[in-house]
Amino acid sequence: MNKYTLLFIPALFAGQVMAQDKKPDPANDPKTTEVWEPVPKIVTPGKLPQDAPSDAIILFNGRNLDAWHSVKDPSKPAAWTIDDGFFTVKKGTGNIETNKKFTDYQLHLEWKIPENISGEGQARGNSGVFLASTGGGDDGYEIQILDVFNNKTYVNGQTGSVYKQAIPLANANKKPGEWQYYDIIWNAPRFNEDGTVLKPASVTLFLNGVLLQNGFVLKGATRYIGTPEYKKHGPSSIKLQDHGDPSPAISYRNIWVREL
Amino acid sequence: MNKYTLLFIPALFAGQVMAQDKKPDPANDPKTTEVWEPVPKIVTPGKLPQDAPSDAIILFNGRNLDAWHSVKDPSKPAAWTIDDGFFTVKKGTGNIETNKKFTDYQLHLEWKIPENISGEGQARGNSGVFLASTGGGDDGYEIQILDVFNNKTYVNGQTGSVYKQAIPLANANKKPGEWQYYDIIWNAPRFNEDGTVLKPASVTLFLNGVLLQNGFVLKGATRYIGTPEYKKHGPSSIKLQDHGDPSPAISYRNIWVREL
Amino acid sequence: MNKYTLLFIPALFAGQVMAQDKKPDPANDPKTTEVWEPVPKIVTPGKLPQDAPSDAIILFNGRNLDAWHSVKDPSKPAAWTIDDGFFTVKKGTGNIETNKKFTDYQLHLEWKIPENISGEGQARGNSGVFLASTGGGDDGYEIQILDVFNNKTYVNGQTGSVYKQAIPLANANKKPGEWQYYDIIWNAPRFNEDGTVLKPASVTLFLNGVLLQNGFVLKGATRYIGTPEYKKHGPSSIKLQDHGDPSPAISYRNIWVREL
Amino acid sequence: MNKYTLLFIPALFAGQVMAQDKKPDPANDPKTTEVWEPVPKIVTPGKLPQDAPSDAIILFNGRNLDAWHSVKDPSKPAAWTIDDGFFTVKKGTGNIETNKKFTDYQLHLEWKIPENISGEGQARGNSGVFLASTGGGDDGYEIQILDVFNNKTYVNGQTGSVYKQAIPLANANKKPGEWQYYDIIWNAPRFNEDGTVLKPASVTLFLNGVLLQNGFVLKGATRYIGTPEYKKHGPSSIKLQDHGDPSPAISYRNIWVREL
Repeated sequence: MNKYTLLFIPALFAGQVMAQDKKPDPANDPKTTEVWEPVPKIVTPGKLPQDAPSDAIILFNGRNLDAWHSVKDPSKPAAWTIDDGFFTVKKGTGNIETNKKFTDYQLHLEWKIPENISGEGQARGNSGVFLASTGGGDDGYEIQILDVFNNKTYVNGQTGSVYKQAIPLANANKKPGEWQYYDIIWNAPRFNEDGTVLKPASVTLFLNGVLLQNGFVLKGATRYIGTPEYKKHGPSSIKLQDHGDPSPAISYRNIWVREL
Repeated sequence: MNKYTLLFIPALFAGQVMAQDKKPDPANDPKTTEVWEPVPKIVTPGKLPQDAPSDAIILFNGRNLDAWHSVKDPSKPAAWTIDDGFFTVKKGTGNIETNKKFTDYQLHLEWKIPENISGEGQARGNSGVFLASTGGGDDGYEIQILDVFNNKTYVNGQTGSVYKQAIPLANANKKPGEWQYYDIIWNAPRFNEDGTVLKPASVTLFLNGVLLQNGFVLKGATRYIGTPEYKKHGPSSIKLQDHGDPSPAISYRNIWVREL
Repeated sequence: MNKYTLLFIPALFAGQVMAQDKKPDPANDPKTTEVWEPVPKIVTPGKLPQDAPSDAIILFNGRNLDAWHSVKDPSKPAAWTIDDGFFTVKKGTGNIETNKKFTDYQLHLEWKIPENISGEGQARGNSGVFLASTGGGDDGYEIQILDVFNNKTYVNGQTGSVYKQAIPLANANKKPGEWQYYDIIWNAPRFNEDGTVLKPASVTLFLNGVLLQNGFVLKGATRYIGTPEYKKHGPSSIKLQDHGDPSPAISYRNIWVREL
Repeated sequence: MNKYTLLFIPALFAGQVMAQDKKPDPANDPKTTEVWEPVPKIVTPGKLPQDAPSDAIILFNGRNLDAWHSVKDPSKPAAWTIDDGFFTVKKGTGNIETNKKFTDYQLHLEWKIPENISGEGQARGNSGVFLASTGGGDDGYEIQILDVFNNKTYVNGQTGSVYKQAIPLANANKKPGEWQYYDIIWNAPRFNEDGTVLKPASVTLFLNGVLLQNGFVLKGATRYIGTPEYKKHGPSSIKLQDHGDPSPAISYRNIWVREL
């Protein structure tokens, strides 16, 4: 060694120390909170907001109801009326539900109250989408569909209500004859082996782009009469209602779902 | 009275029993679970999915940034660049935030990575929307905005991440040069008087109609370095980020919010 | 410089690099996740499990009911019967509640069904503790107290039920004449300004050391008739019930509460 | 029949009407909200608060560690030191865990810092109970045990902390040489098939009868270094820690658990 070395070394050292001053404290390193996997899957969004993203399951392609069956007789196809690009409840044939069963999902669904709608209260364009069909008839968790553009009814039975459980946050209904759309996030309930609830269901719902349900935690299956209750179930069909009221039937189109 | 009385009595009785069969058991009356108020407010939805509903507050009208101010100097207007119908981050001027403060809300916001984007990782079209600006600089809860159409970075720093807290559920980014849109539900945190958390914040977020955050419960304010933490605050501005990276600046348009 | 310098420097450098290998990566430093404040307050626990910790508010000192008043007439003191170290419901005088109001708390409370209890179903030693008294009469959130040691009733009305909302997880009742104890964690509901629920109430409850309610989220105030509903309130008294049934009156002792 | 029939008929009628006046409106019938099953199981509580209820699984009977094995070598019995009615960590033998695996439970566990404790900070009577042992070593969810009667350390590493996640609500420690007791409610996390979290874990914990954790929702497994993360697991052992610090070993006794 010589003096130059001596002079040089401290400088080197100082450099190190300075570098350490910059990021000596691990709490100061942003890299410690970076996560690099799993890498989210690539999903190509639709061109228009209502278009199905690339990973969506199309539940109605505009031409047939092959993805659905009759609830009364699951061996039979759904017998509702198909038009060009949409289908309409065939009164008296009963509810229909998807062949495929789902747990958690994002659902897009469009519906139209007929322009010539009649009736009042719950008897005016009544239908509904059951986010999980847990049995025949109306068993499950129903989001109400109804003409409430200018029609008074109980508010926990309005369009966008979790039927008889949750009043919608707004009345964002369009007038009869116009297509309306639901965007729904369904988080299915989970159950313990003994049938008790491990995690209740919750739902977030937009009607025509307006938030109507904000992560509402369901009290159980929706019921026309009595108190909601949970009853253990697994993956379930999505079900559409043929309501018994005599008003003109409503139509559906453009239904797609993304499993979460 | 006479023997006819004898005949009549059972009839009377039967009538009572019949009436009781109809609605004797309160558990059988659907009216008991009807709720009639409060009546949800009427909101006229937009004509197109991206249009503001009637009760929305317009945060950018396409012409000026009057609803925003500079974060560095709140007495000064936001100095970003305005074009016809959109505005663009002016690099070096700092973040901007809304004059109005919010708690819970539904937010629609559109943004575009410039077609000539350059850079890589986090230095490629980086900006962000802070759902609540809880201080100067980058304090608050940031939803990341970044070109990740074809750009690798840490996944909890992708577009649609709750920055360094929650990986987005999908990569639904469009390519640079195309307008993209966020629909966000923000449930602000609530605090006890002593500053501890009463209820953490949660967020649901769609990018281009695809669900990226499903009611994610935030661990605290988002931080570049270190662990997220909550610090008591009340109603807050929405903030947009002027990120320091040298890549071309991104643009915004069509921003509206509905208070919940 | 000379060759010695050149030889030496790398060695120095290597040393630095090694040191950096040891703790260069902030993710490897346990100190980054240490938190040093706020320092939890010191609480001296009781000598026996049922004894009040040092920060508890004593709601019954064994000698008088100075901490309580009549619900019917809040200006009047609680007129129940005081014995040596315990007190007994005075039938017909109505409910009593604490002068002090509470939000979240840990409550210890002991009660005894009289040895000579008579009656059946709900008419057998019926009383209850309302975790928040939100009005006169039985308004609030009631945890049931009842002799169900050998007495059949509806299970959501058993001892330890959240009355008509939550069945207790077990029947851990002692026989009449023995003192029993509740340990309860009450997290009061919080409300938005418009009266809607920000955060529902939840309760955890032990009877005689056995868990009966495990963070149950209440659906609203407990009601004898109809559906539970929330109605906005703030800090509230704890209330004890003078139930109208004709069975012999039950006794209480050793009541303390810790505010959370 | 006879004339008395005549007199009787109106009475009958009146009776019906009166009965209907009393409970004509289903919303007024308290029976509609009674639930009669399932009937909660009968559990005989212990005589003293610390005694095991009748349905508890005894994890230490005062005489042997047959319910436990070595974590390092699960084929070997737990080799800690047994005294009359309690056992003591045998330094250097490693952690021990229960043979039986659990999901949700109520746990009672007593422990004692030796009177001659020495050391400071984390090196003073350090041990811990892992509510679910999710792997070898210290993998899992640790509730810290440490002498902090008069010993300063980071507060998220105090007795009763969810280690490095949750500061205890109070410091209710007794002095070295005294037995202390934990009462813990553990709600295990649940996972989706893909390993993501369906429902995070939560814990409620009392030390010596004082609430230290109030339904805290865990951010993941506890970690000495780095950020807590969840990793999918099922039913798991309860584990006790042989901490490497050189201070005198702590003792345990009276451990029982009730599955929920």
